[in-house]
Amino acid sequence: MNARPAISSQGAATLGALVGIGLGPGDPELVTVKAARLIGEAKTIAYFAKRGRVSHARTIAERYFSKGYEELPLLYPITTEIAFDAPDYVSTLASFYEESAQRIAAVLEEGRDVALLCEGDPFLYGSFMHIFVRLEGRFRVEVCAGVSGMSGCFAAARQPMTWGDDILTVMPATLDEDTLAQRLATTDAAVVMKLGGNFPKLRRAMERAGVVSRAIYVERGAMAGEKIMPFAEKSGDEAPYFSMALVPGQGRRP
Amino acid sequence: MNARPAISSQGAATLGALVGIGLGPGDPELVTVKAARLIGEAKTIAYFAKRGRVSHARTIAERYFSKGYEELPLLYPITTEIAFDAPDYVSTLASFYEESAQRIAAVLEEGRDVALLCEGDPFLYGSFMHIFVRLEGRFRVEVCAGVSGMSGCFAAARQPMTWGDDILTVMPATLDEDTLAQRLATTDAAVVMKLGGNFPKLRRAMERAGVVSRAIYVERGAMAGEKIMPFAEKSGDEAPYFSMALVPGQGRRP
Repeated sequence: MNARPAISSQGAATLGALVGIGLGPGDPELVTVKAARLIGEAKTIAYFAKRGRVSHARTIAERYFSKGYEELPLLYPITTEIAFDAPDYVSTLASFYEESAQRIAAVLEEGRDVALLCEGDPFLYGSFMHIFVRLEGRFRVEVCAGVSGMSGCFAAARQPMTWGDDILTVMPATLDEDTLAQRLATTDAAVVMKLGGNFPKLRRAMERAGVVSRAIYVERGAMAGEKIMPFAEKSGDEAPYFSMALVPGQGRRP
Repeated sequence: MNARPAISSQGAATLGALVGIGLGPGDPELVTVKAARLIGEAKTIAYFAKRGRVSHARTIAERYFSKGYEELPLLYPITTEIAFDAPDYVSTLASFYEESAQRIAAVLEEGRDVALLCEGDPFLYGSFMHIFVRLEGRFRVEVCAGVSGMSGCFAAARQPMTWGDDILTVMPATLDEDTLAQRLATTDAAVVMKLGGNFPKLRRAMERAGVVSRAIYVERGAMAGEKIMPFAEKSGDEAPYFSMALVPGQGRRP
């Protein structure tokens, strides 16, 4: 947790350090005191965004920006939903992360630090991880934990999730229906993320697993436009990407 | 997320509100901006502690206390480890949570608010949940999400945990060895919490599941005295209660 001195590269100019900063689920007040400090100290602030859209991460963090910083937007080349297993998707994203890592590396090589903003917690399904694995070892990389999107949803839904010996399963709705149904049927508590276009498949899996009656649907938890309702009352087949299903545990309660 | 006016109880004096405040994994800087504000505004600050020990929650939050507050320590009656399924344990804890809820309710009934400090995230295996279920409905109860203990450990261990479609299983080491081994063998990523006296059992389960070589042992993550090492290098059968084992996922990485 202590700051280490920047690493000297064989007598060359001192390299900058990268810090991945978890921003929490969306409410700017759910940013940690440490993250707020790091953002305020940052001279170069990087963030991911979809091309042509406002960066969600930047919006959360903006109130903590100080003066005299520069921004390094990393714009995803893909704006429509493509199947995760499509070869084009994988190669396009791999190129994007490689190019983003190189852009950050160029700043670090000039001896300047970079703060990379991350929604939620950086190490839970975070885009930051793709930069981390590419730059760790070459540069000093620090990570500031954040409130995860799912913790934001638990509080928004006012829903205790795991009691005593409960087992919690966290999974993306991008999994196939059989896997979702089997996992939902064999866990005490569950969080299913990234609903989006996978909603109808998740509903079928929830029904097969017999957990619909105690499940909760959370749309944009701890963000503007938050909606919370029993899963069974969610109508239609549409759900935004920033939505989750929660199945609370029912374990030991003294 | 908006503050609601305190509820009037059929024309009687206005009741106070309870807020459960997640404090994060241990580093006081990993408290959220919202939690720091709520703690500073609190007039009555409640927290759990083991009798005769310093409250860990109080230590994390103390720097955010303002003046003119009163403290409401809730002291666990049990200081040694008792088996979770022992009838004495369950009835003793049930009485303790009931009495704690009544002490908090007495303050709320006088029209004063209570802030209850919670380590980690309040709704993930948190003691706060036992108070929440006893007072919700009778009083206004709010919850402020926090950085979970496990997220603190991911960052401390510098370990990306879940990629792409990875399934994450979170479970306490209090489960029996067969369950631990079976779950570890059938998940992409795992977090095992509350090691304590369960460490030798967990080691056997890890070995049976074939995940020892990629597991990490984190002791007091994001707290003073933090220790991180490959699970395979952890010697001895002793581990503190505040220790975790991480099995990182290895999923899709563009």
